[in-house]
Amino acid sequence: MDGAPRREERVIAIHGYSVSGNCHKLRLLLEQMGRHPGRDYRWIETDSAHGATRTPEYLAKNPNGKVPMLELDDGRVLVESNAILHYLAEGTAFLPDDPWQRAQALSWMFFEQYSHEPYIAVARFIRGWTPLDSPRRANELPRCLERGNQALAVMDKHLQSSDWFTGPRYGIADIALFAYTGVAHHGGFELARYPNVSAWLARVRATPGFVEMPAPAPENAALLAASA
Amino acid sequence: MDGAPRREERVIAIHGYSVSGNCHKLRLLLEQMGRHPGRDYRWIETDSAHGATRTPEYLAKNPNGKVPMLELDDGRVLVESNAILHYLAEGTAFLPDDPWQRAQALSWMFFEQYSHEPYIAVARFIRGWTPLDSPRRANELPRCLERGNQALAVMDKHLQSSDWFTGPRYGIADIALFAYTGVAHHGGFELARYPNVSAWLARVRATPGFVEMPAPAPENAALLAASA
Repeated sequence: MDGAPRREERVIAIHGYSVSGNCHKLRLLLEQMGRHPGRDYRWIETDSAHGATRTPEYLAKNPNGKVPMLELDDGRVLVESNAILHYLAEGTAFLPDDPWQRAQALSWMFFEQYSHEPYIAVARFIRGWTPLDSPRRANELPRCLERGNQALAVMDKHLQSSDWFTGPRYGIADIALFAYTGVAHHGGFELARYPNVSAWLARVRATPGFVEMPAPAPENAALLAASA
Repeated sequence: MDGAPRREERVIAIHGYSVSGNCHKLRLLLEQMGRHPGRDYRWIETDSAHGATRTPEYLAKNPNGKVPMLELDDGRVLVESNAILHYLAEGTAFLPDDPWQRAQALSWMFFEQYSHEPYIAVARFIRGWTPLDSPRRANELPRCLERGNQALAVMDKHLQSSDWFTGPRYGIADIALFAYTGVAHHGGFELARYPNVSAWLARVRATPGFVEMPAPAPENAALLAASA
């Protein structure tokens, strides 16, 4: 795009846990941007559910101990999924040029991390990644469901008059919000209550190059099934 | 700055609760940018602690029911404190031009909203804005203190080798992180444990045009004092 600063083109590494929505955001964008010389990436599977982000080596790169993490070939790193999306999308069709549209896209990305992910992703994590007798199920799930449904209602209202969250076209705010909305049923959310959200999910899945997040491992799938 | 898209210059309105750190971020940036013709603002005090963001009129503008909210003179609105900071700072010295530095600034702003504010701001809110017999004090404060201290430790580590969070200079990532770190003692955090954070807070307070957040109202100050 004209006038926008361009990131340097290089092979990058993504440290990510494939069944994490925050990590899948990056795979989805990178696959949709297309792999080609000067814009390729390798994925370093990093199982945050089993301590891989708590090793001394990992914490030396990211003291906050989370995935995903982008690493350049010179060792510099960038963390926070939505900051990475924004960095990668700069100068592409996945982020508008218009300042107001860019601001709205970023607003939805902050909404996702503050009002959506802490409830919708956390409900999924508790149901699929904690034991059936975990006290978090009784202590945290009701509030996750209440607040997560509020977030879905806010999204549904926006989608009454807009097709996308990034501006006039599909882009990184859609990717950020799709990540955990697309698997919200894992957390116990009934997406049929949100027809505009359901239609938007279908539109996202129909975008060129779309890739679905992998299914959880059998142990997590079993916990999710037992939680239903 | 060269090449960066410029927002349209106009009088804007900020709907904010003055003793909210998320809202004070915008006052601090706008005061430091300087009021002058073509870049002025008015502040519409909006007491989110007493329902002012839950009126039908407010929810029609921001269905998520939160402050702060920026409103243009044509009625368009922008929400999410850090998205507003980013929008206002585009093309100014408060946001670098360099793509990697911009990405790092945004990364810290997502860190602030995900790993910092939900613990450090919420601890302050519980101690100063809920009754002394609120069950949230027993149920939530211990986790707020644990996670908030983790966030302060991550900040302290970064500040071992950097003066600022926005890149080589003070800017919007510093403003975002300052907002609640500057009043973290309200939440029961001991900033003396974090010497680099303490030194950075002093540097922020010494920047040109710095304005401190107003003191809480007497009822909130009394609750904070009784919580200490």
